[in-house]
Amino acid sequence: MARVRVESFSLSLDGFGAGVDQSLQNPLGVHGSDLHQWFIGTRTFRRMVLRQQDGSTGLDEEFAQRGFQNIGAWILGRNMFGPVRGAWPDESWKGWWGDEPPYHVPVFVLTHHARPSLAMKGGTVFHFVTGGADEALARAREAAAGKDVRIGGGPHTIRQYLQAKAIDELHLAISPVLLGAGERLLEGVNLRELGYHCVRTAASEKATHVILAKEGD
Amino acid sequence: MARVRVESFSLSLDGFGAGVDQSLQNPLGVHGSDLHQWFIGTRTFRRMVLRQQDGSTGLDEEFAQRGFQNIGAWILGRNMFGPVRGAWPDESWKGWWGDEPPYHVPVFVLTHHARPSLAMKGGTVFHFVTGGADEALARAREAAAGKDVRIGGGPHTIRQYLQAKAIDELHLAISPVLLGAGERLLEGVNLRELGYHCVRTAASEKATHVILAKEGD
Repeated sequence: MARVRVESFSLSLDGFGAGVDQSLQNPLGVHGSDLHQWFIGTRTFRRMVLRQQDGSTGLDEEFAQRGFQNIGAWILGRNMFGPVRGAWPDESWKGWWGDEPPYHVPVFVLTHHARPSLAMKGGTVFHFVTGGADEALARAREAAAGKDVRIGGGPHTIRQYLQAKAIDELHLAISPVLLGAGERLLEGVNLRELGYHCVRTAASEKATHVILAKEGD
Repeated sequence: MARVRVESFSLSLDGFGAGVDQSLQNPLGVHGSDLHQWFIGTRTFRRMVLRQQDGSTGLDEEFAQRGFQNIGAWILGRNMFGPVRGAWPDESWKGWWGDEPPYHVPVFVLTHHARPSLAMKGGTVFHFVTGGADEALARAREAAAGKDVRIGGGPHTIRQYLQAKAIDELHLAISPVLLGAGERLLEGVNLRELGYHCVRTAASEKATHVILAKEGD
């Protein structure tokens, strides 16, 4: 059975999944990129996002890599796709990632504002879903054709799917930084009550990696 | 200069410093003791709390031990002293720890209800402070006579002293458990704005240890 996974989701020590004031200059909010120090040095990040051939190969790389394994479709909240709010002024914004985004599969973007699908180089196709989280998941499952669906974020999108009990497994990476303010991933979410428990932890110098899974999964 | 420290404060992955429904049976709230698995196997815990001579000696022990080094006085919120709420019905409750508590120095208990000081075996003296957090800290500093003051908790007490910028250093131990509900240590506290940053992390199998310090400290 295909699974729904959250992967490589970075959290600060104080529980924030993103900083405040997301903008074109700060896609992850102010200080948000501090969260991802464990990730940006890895071979997977260097290869998938920067198309470089170098990068680290230790524990951080192991976790970075698993995030892309057996993924048939992604779901992103609109703010992960870009800084544009409200109706799309035009179709010029094509994501943060340039001509060839690192997904290489269909990506379903949750938005209240319809827009034609957008095929990018390398197999990524952005679909803009206005029917809500359930519709996005149904379409992503179908597009994934038996592979897993990865929920990319942000925090609000992950919470929606947690509360719908749709997520089978989460990999969180707790980074040794304090954000102080921002969006708390688990605000108002009782993971224990939803049936999750911690099945693995492993720490590198740059992050403590945690795998949470649902009982029975 | 004597410092004010939080030591061995355990947090769940979802940020809770104690479970819900503290009671005589569950001094740390429901499931709260899961938080302290890293601590209860250590030589320090076995020796200080259970007066046994065994226990582990690895990284967890290193952090358990430092929590008792150079401490001249403690401050506890009332709920850490016991489950009694409101006015003291009598003076029979003498803490969770039996005749000889593991403090061996003066301990200042924050309460709204006056009560005579209570001298225990082994040098622990409980003083009940009704004048608030500032008064407790002033008295603890004086009693510590140049050594450090340890803020034992709970979460509410630590937040009070954080917001007063009174705490120099915090050791948090993030345990691989989900509590789902309870008291969030950092609710409404912006550690970054208060000047804290992470100066060390180290992980054992049972916890990720984190040291936070104030800038300039």
